[in-house]
Amino acid sequence: MAGSGLLIHGGAVVTVDDEGAVHDPGWVYAEGNRIAEVGSGSAPAARRRGADRVIDATGAAVMPGMVNAHTHLFQGFFRGLADDRALLDWLRDCIWPGAVHLDGPTAYLAALAGLIENLRTGATTVIDHQYVHVDSTIDDAVCSAADELGVRFLLARGWADRNYPEPLMETAEVAVERARAVRGRWDGRDDDRMRVELAPLIPWGCSDEAMRATVAEARSWGRGTHIHCAETAVEVEMSLEERGMRHVPWLESLGVLGSDVQLAHSVWLDEGELDLIAESGSVVVHCPVSNMYLASGVAPVIEMRRRGIAVALASDGPGSNNRQDMFEVMKATALLQKVHHLDATVLEPAEVLHMACRGGAAAFGLPGAFGAIAVGQRADLVVVDLRSPFVMPVHRVPSALVYNATPRDVRDVIVDGRVLIGDGELIGVDEPGVLARAEAAARKLFERAEIPTRLRG
Amino acid sequence: MAGSGLLIHGGAVVTVDDEGAVHDPGWVYAEGNRIAEVGSGSAPAARRRGADRVIDATGAAVMPGMVNAHTHLFQGFFRGLADDRALLDWLRDCIWPGAVHLDGPTAYLAALAGLIENLRTGATTVIDHQYVHVDSTIDDAVCSAADELGVRFLLARGWADRNYPEPLMETAEVAVERARAVRGRWDGRDDDRMRVELAPLIPWGCSDEAMRATVAEARSWGRGTHIHCAETAVEVEMSLEERGMRHVPWLESLGVLGSDVQLAHSVWLDEGELDLIAESGSVVVHCPVSNMYLASGVAPVIEMRRRGIAVALASDGPGSNNRQDMFEVMKATALLQKVHHLDATVLEPAEVLHMACRGGAAAFGLPGAFGAIAVGQRADLVVVDLRSPFVMPVHRVPSALVYNATPRDVRDVIVDGRVLIGDGELIGVDEPGVLARAEAAARKLFERAEIPTRLRG
Repeated sequence: MAGSGLLIHGGAVVTVDDEGAVHDPGWVYAEGNRIAEVGSGSAPAARRRGADRVIDATGAAVMPGMVNAHTHLFQGFFRGLADDRALLDWLRDCIWPGAVHLDGPTAYLAALAGLIENLRTGATTVIDHQYVHVDSTIDDAVCSAADELGVRFLLARGWADRNYPEPLMETAEVAVERARAVRGRWDGRDDDRMRVELAPLIPWGCSDEAMRATVAEARSWGRGTHIHCAETAVEVEMSLEERGMRHVPWLESLGVLGSDVQLAHSVWLDEGELDLIAESGSVVVHCPVSNMYLASGVAPVIEMRRRGIAVALASDGPGSNNRQDMFEVMKATALLQKVHHLDATVLEPAEVLHMACRGGAAAFGLPGAFGAIAVGQRADLVVVDLRSPFVMPVHRVPSALVYNATPRDVRDVIVDGRVLIGDGELIGVDEPGVLARAEAAARKLFERAEIPTRLRG
Repeated sequence: MAGSGLLIHGGAVVTVDDEGAVHDPGWVYAEGNRIAEVGSGSAPAARRRGADRVIDATGAAVMPGMVNAHTHLFQGFFRGLADDRALLDWLRDCIWPGAVHLDGPTAYLAALAGLIENLRTGATTVIDHQYVHVDSTIDDAVCSAADELGVRFLLARGWADRNYPEPLMETAEVAVERARAVRGRWDGRDDDRMRVELAPLIPWGCSDEAMRATVAEARSWGRGTHIHCAETAVEVEMSLEERGMRHVPWLESLGVLGSDVQLAHSVWLDEGELDLIAESGSVVVHCPVSNMYLASGVAPVIEMRRRGIAVALASDGPGSNNRQDMFEVMKATALLQKVHHLDATVLEPAEVLHMACRGGAAAFGLPGAFGAIAVGQRADLVVVDLRSPFVMPVHRVPSALVYNATPRDVRDVIVDGRVLIGDGELIGVDEPGVLARAEAAARKLFERAEIPTRLRG
């Protein structure tokens, strides 16, 4: 494997391992798609000789790739179109009327541009809750984009069988049949770089029977279930009125909860629900920027962590953010909890990094397989330049990563030992060309949908 | 004046004028340090011929320069050193022990690096609440840095006469005497590009008599007063215990309030205090990122705006942020109010831009002189590239500026018609050299202060 050795040295290695070790300076050596060795100080001469690619990270931090554990890539084309609205108005006024006009080629370009955005923010793994199937080629288009770029990718294949606009609904049977097909083409590819799971859209969009069917199907594959949960107070009220239950008890009553389940948002939870999540080992995906943008509320992240709940972080779809920026998400995670609790001590940078990296690996369904710089883990690594007027001087590297760094500072991005961004350049991709094609596709989408926007001129 | 003509054309001109006009595309023509003409569509041939500098803003937005209306530049050297603490602990544990070792050359480099950071975030105007006078050359050092870079600058010359560490205190007499001297050297320079005012540090740091004396002195100059106000609940409690008054009634009782006064933070205000501020025309400087970072609280910005209070925006010192990033501040302003009120409609991008630009001009003491792209205003302009994967596609330009753009996207920065950053390059400044010298000075500061930090190796 000497021929596939990658050495990164000279920078501050923020491992996010169990001890929270920082090797400053330190080095990481990867063979193939795994981390083979991690050390402090200068890299040994043998490692330098054995490497066929060496990255000098002097003046930079080396951190595990982050996981954007809940997004809707197609919404990259919708951002800014319907600001300053609550969730349900935002869906009805903007997202649905556009989404019904999506097609495979459009979804492909939205995914490509959106995944470039993710890579540039140091998200080496993305979970796409992809629930638009008006064209049966969309799932494959999105997976193709992820595969082309080489990002670690989980297609959370969405569905809804009620309360959604007709073209966005499917029966459980159809959802399962189509999901099986897409799973057959992509799941497990490249040592689990690509995975497919099932993803009931949202409690009020899913019938009990269909929930049972798709969760059982996913479990039969050894894969999980991804769902929006308790994002807004209005939705919890709707659930109480209709089902006499809040969201988590409803999920519990159907046998959904478990360590293979990701609950996106989870803002409006009572104590009993927090206990249910903790007991079941379900993973919460926290989306603070979206929760602020849509005025959804403040998720009880501190209470989750006290109970040992695994918390991952995410941007949510760019339609309600309006960026996909994990540095922004990390800072918002810390800051929103601090101001909400009027207590600056409730979250520290090291804990936020843990959520962004290791919480995300748990959400992906492979806890411990990536998310830390440790021997045997997948070599998903990010080099973050610390030499900018927004970052310097650096007294504590984890602090600089959470409170100061931005995508501007991401210099190198490695997935499975493969350098996807080197010295700020996306390798083998015509990035301006992709963005221009994406913008043209967005323009056509809004022309088809007859939605007025500046983009149409 | 043809020889000093600057034309910016081809981009979306977000004027932030009284009508909130956006010329898309549009153009701006500046002569000397003033905006001479603004138009829609293509720039007239005569303007192209008359300009000695032309900036093609195709694919970009042109906006007024923003105002970072409350910072402490010296804290650039302290960021990340004392995260996750409440305000008073943070001051005692970190800021004071370092600040007492500041000197002129160190303050100069901190200011230079910090003002570069401000320019790179599109802040063409900075108000520095500079309260460290352990070395009598610090004020001049900071003003020199601002003058060298060409940024619009207000030295809010701070003082405290009680409850601060001895080396950080001054009597009112000494503060006034020194402030007069620095004012004599800098105030009014370059058509009011540089100004000096007096800035009592914080209510519990200032005696009544000293307050009266320095406010009267500043008014005798035709200049204002800048002060921290009601940042944390603890401080308001302290004021109630000691003076039997909350912060704003105390200021009112001393005759301080007025349109020449800037109240930084103003988080913990009751209805009566909001009324007092509104009646007096005092300007509030809102610092949402700092208020979250220090867990200070959520300022009643919506209630302020309902009363017609002018609100400016600021990063606060980089020691409690830890960036000086006006794009981050704008987004946090909108998002924090939305989630606090659980209402996504409470603030729109156009209102946030108004605060960042025009609110800031009011804080500077020259409302209407800059902050909008309008004929006769100072030519303080920023060109923001909209072609990045974090921003594209752009449906609404004001939204993209508030929710998507970052300092990464700032391409050109113009102050008084002079291009300070062109095509991303800081003109006439060795930026890496400045940052390296600044880092070395920070290292020496912490060596003198015997404060342990990674920076010292």
